[in-house]
Amino acid sequence: MTSDVPGPIAATAVECTAAVAEYAATTSDADIPEAASLHIPRLALLDTVGVALAGGTSELYHRLAATLDDEVGTGPSTVFAGATQAPPRIAALLNGAAAHALDYDDATYASYGHPSAVLMPALLASGEESGAQQLGSAYAVGLGVIHALSRGVDVDAHYRLGWHATATIGLIGATAATSRLLGLDTDKTRHAVGIAASLAGGSRSNFGTMTKPLHVGMAASNAVLASSLAARGFTANPSALEAKGGYFALFGCEPQGPELCTEMLKLQPWHFLEDPPHFKLYPCCFNTHRGVTAAMEIHGLFQPAGDDIESVRVTVEPEGLAPLIDGYPPTGLQAKFSMAYVVAAALLDGRVTLSTFDDEVVQRPDLRAVAERTTVHESSPGPRDRQRPANVQVSLRDGRSFQATAELGRQDHSATTRELLSAKFRDCLDHSDHAWNWRVEDHLWRMVNAGAVIRFPGSVKSATDPRGDGESREGNRISDER
Amino acid sequence: MTSDVPGPIAATAVECTAAVAEYAATTSDADIPEAASLHIPRLALLDTVGVALAGGTSELYHRLAATLDDEVGTGPSTVFAGATQAPPRIAALLNGAAAHALDYDDATYASYGHPSAVLMPALLASGEESGAQQLGSAYAVGLGVIHALSRGVDVDAHYRLGWHATATIGLIGATAATSRLLGLDTDKTRHAVGIAASLAGGSRSNFGTMTKPLHVGMAASNAVLASSLAARGFTANPSALEAKGGYFALFGCEPQGPELCTEMLKLQPWHFLEDPPHFKLYPCCFNTHRGVTAAMEIHGLFQPAGDDIESVRVTVEPEGLAPLIDGYPPTGLQAKFSMAYVVAAALLDGRVTLSTFDDEVVQRPDLRAVAERTTVHESSPGPRDRQRPANVQVSLRDGRSFQATAELGRQDHSATTRELLSAKFRDCLDHSDHAWNWRVEDHLWRMVNAGAVIRFPGSVKSATDPRGDGESREGNRISDER
Repeated sequence: MTSDVPGPIAATAVECTAAVAEYAATTSDADIPEAASLHIPRLALLDTVGVALAGGTSELYHRLAATLDDEVGTGPSTVFAGATQAPPRIAALLNGAAAHALDYDDATYASYGHPSAVLMPALLASGEESGAQQLGSAYAVGLGVIHALSRGVDVDAHYRLGWHATATIGLIGATAATSRLLGLDTDKTRHAVGIAASLAGGSRSNFGTMTKPLHVGMAASNAVLASSLAARGFTANPSALEAKGGYFALFGCEPQGPELCTEMLKLQPWHFLEDPPHFKLYPCCFNTHRGVTAAMEIHGLFQPAGDDIESVRVTVEPEGLAPLIDGYPPTGLQAKFSMAYVVAAALLDGRVTLSTFDDEVVQRPDLRAVAERTTVHESSPGPRDRQRPANVQVSLRDGRSFQATAELGRQDHSATTRELLSAKFRDCLDHSDHAWNWRVEDHLWRMVNAGAVIRFPGSVKSATDPRGDGESREGNRISDER
Repeated sequence: MTSDVPGPIAATAVECTAAVAEYAATTSDADIPEAASLHIPRLALLDTVGVALAGGTSELYHRLAATLDDEVGTGPSTVFAGATQAPPRIAALLNGAAAHALDYDDATYASYGHPSAVLMPALLASGEESGAQQLGSAYAVGLGVIHALSRGVDVDAHYRLGWHATATIGLIGATAATSRLLGLDTDKTRHAVGIAASLAGGSRSNFGTMTKPLHVGMAASNAVLASSLAARGFTANPSALEAKGGYFALFGCEPQGPELCTEMLKLQPWHFLEDPPHFKLYPCCFNTHRGVTAAMEIHGLFQPAGDDIESVRVTVEPEGLAPLIDGYPPTGLQAKFSMAYVVAAALLDGRVTLSTFDDEVVQRPDLRAVAERTTVHESSPGPRDRQRPANVQVSLRDGRSFQATAELGRQDHSATTRELLSAKFRDCLDHSDHAWNWRVEDHLWRMVNAGAVIRFPGSVKSATDPRGDGESREGNRISDER
């Protein structure tokens, strides 16, 4: 039968797999902009580990970890939740699922997905075995491949078809990244990408279920598998992306896909810096974030009590309400998708953190009262739609009114962003299982600064003083590298 | 962003996922024909373990096992090669890859794939943990789901697109099978199938490389993961097959797919008995098998020496030569795809076994001489094409000639087939790493007769007397159950 065909199916003319492999294997560290190899990855590492620590307390994570219980215990790689050890492939699976469990990990619209929740767990798990160098530049090429491949498959159409791009595309990016970290040459990286082409999957029909974060864990885990198999000479079709019956044939929605992807890698290799991962500052649906920011601005001008507020009107971009829910949310999980709830919390409390979505907090009468006096609307199409603006208008009982507008904007990677993410990290640590203490933040920061995966020392794992309240936390940071 | 949608995408009207789950969870053992729950699976278990033992000595298996080295050692499930233990998911991965490593495992044209190499490793790995009952009936429902889903996706088109149906469809069948083995109810089985829908993959661009058998291992492993996660209450879309962005949307090539699949499960649940797995009796490309059978028949009439033969002419069905190679094969691996070589071996040696494809054997001058006097042809289309007939004509130097024709036919599950597969099993055991002895054959046979997964006792693992030549092997078999 035809399944016995002895040789790989011939590739088309455009050697896209070779281009991906060359980009991953031969780009020199010096040619990578510092934003890509240092500024973004050190924030991404901190952010990803933080959300994974908080995600490690989720019900879905507990069920996954219980199922994999006999695969964990020893091995070179760290499992964040519980601070245990596991083989690299298993650690990547658990950490990837944990990182996406709360949907609090970074995201980009360019790849319609969450790049770091796949890249970082794969890189850490692969790298801990060897104490690998080039963590930052490996992350950079992974992000570059995700960006170029997103253009190649037409990620918008790919996503609409039902593929979870975070996993299907993230896997290939993470395979390129871990291959670089392991020091694979171009030829072996081609085989790694070929293996990964056969491991890609993830259906959007499972959004809203525990299986969505599982996609992320599997993508990270399969990237580790693909690159470590290729390192041992395991073979695949070295042109699997563009081959007949290959990745573009199965996942692509753009006839010129291999050309577009190859072109971007060769001509605009750091194009992703124009739409870098956005680090979520609020643990709720990304479509609510501009509303939260605008409401926080109003809180900064004037700290209202619930009784002061007559009504709130929130207006977002066209189709901006699609993923959100109406009505007052019965649980914390549902509250993450309620614009009225998150705007009420931002107005009254001046912050939206993990605690905002505790089920008890959602029962607070003042939050419910304001949310029930809030209406949400989509604007007519306009020239700023791509900035996804949200306008919040607050009318007070005394006749005054306040309004503010927030747009998507682009995060910088300054000390200010670091401080915001540092606060987020500490909030995540507070909501973790307390297997780590505050010193882990410095350790993570140091890793990317050193460009290396450094094993976690015992001193960061003690849970006795998780917040470091007894010591000067500031004094222990490497402040000049911030 | 839309990736935050809180609830599963709505299903279409036809509840195909529910039908698959009901079929797997609620069919009573008594309603399953004995051919499906006993006669086929006991042959399939013997055959699959045999080819996995031989496949465990392949280079690709060695590289895979070395990569997964730190995941193996302890656990409830048996890894055939080396007779070691591992967690269920890992054992399924290794055993599935081993079972398909030589492409010597069973196959059906109805599902365009190799069902038992996915089903049996998944079932054994899942079942050893619990000493599960219903091994045979779990296999039967797995095969039924593979058959119905193959019709549902239009497996011919699905395969042509580039999907490796053995893995993409086999995974769903194996998930249904392991869910039944674990005793999951209909609801949990729906979630298991939903999880599996997100783990499906495998590109035909990797045929002819080490990654093809990896697909099979991953499918078996992911089935174990999906059913064991669902057993712990891990959730997925309970209508993931037919949902928007679900399995049929991503993998199907037939608009009425969910209806056709559901209909077959409800109205013709054992339809697969009309095209059951075909157990390969020769370790070479299935398209050469009728040629081998016809040549063996001629050998039975007259045992020629190479010098006796003037010429050989082999004629196969239209397109029957597509996967085969021309010219004399330089290696044993290539020889599996050479009709001229395998027919020469059958004519001169009267058998085609694993040794036939040793590189040294391929260098034998008598085989080369006959192969070089052999021509191969495709016939014009005819009414018997679906039987894939091969005709072999041998002209001798003394003027005589012999000819024979063999067709696909259907294997029965009689004692004769058992004897043929028993001989194959012993050949595989001879070509294994000798971690098992001949007693393992009886143990495997007993398992399906008992309808249970029974742990392998130490007595079958001793390698001191792998062939049992010092004892009466026949006397140790359970002959009344053959």
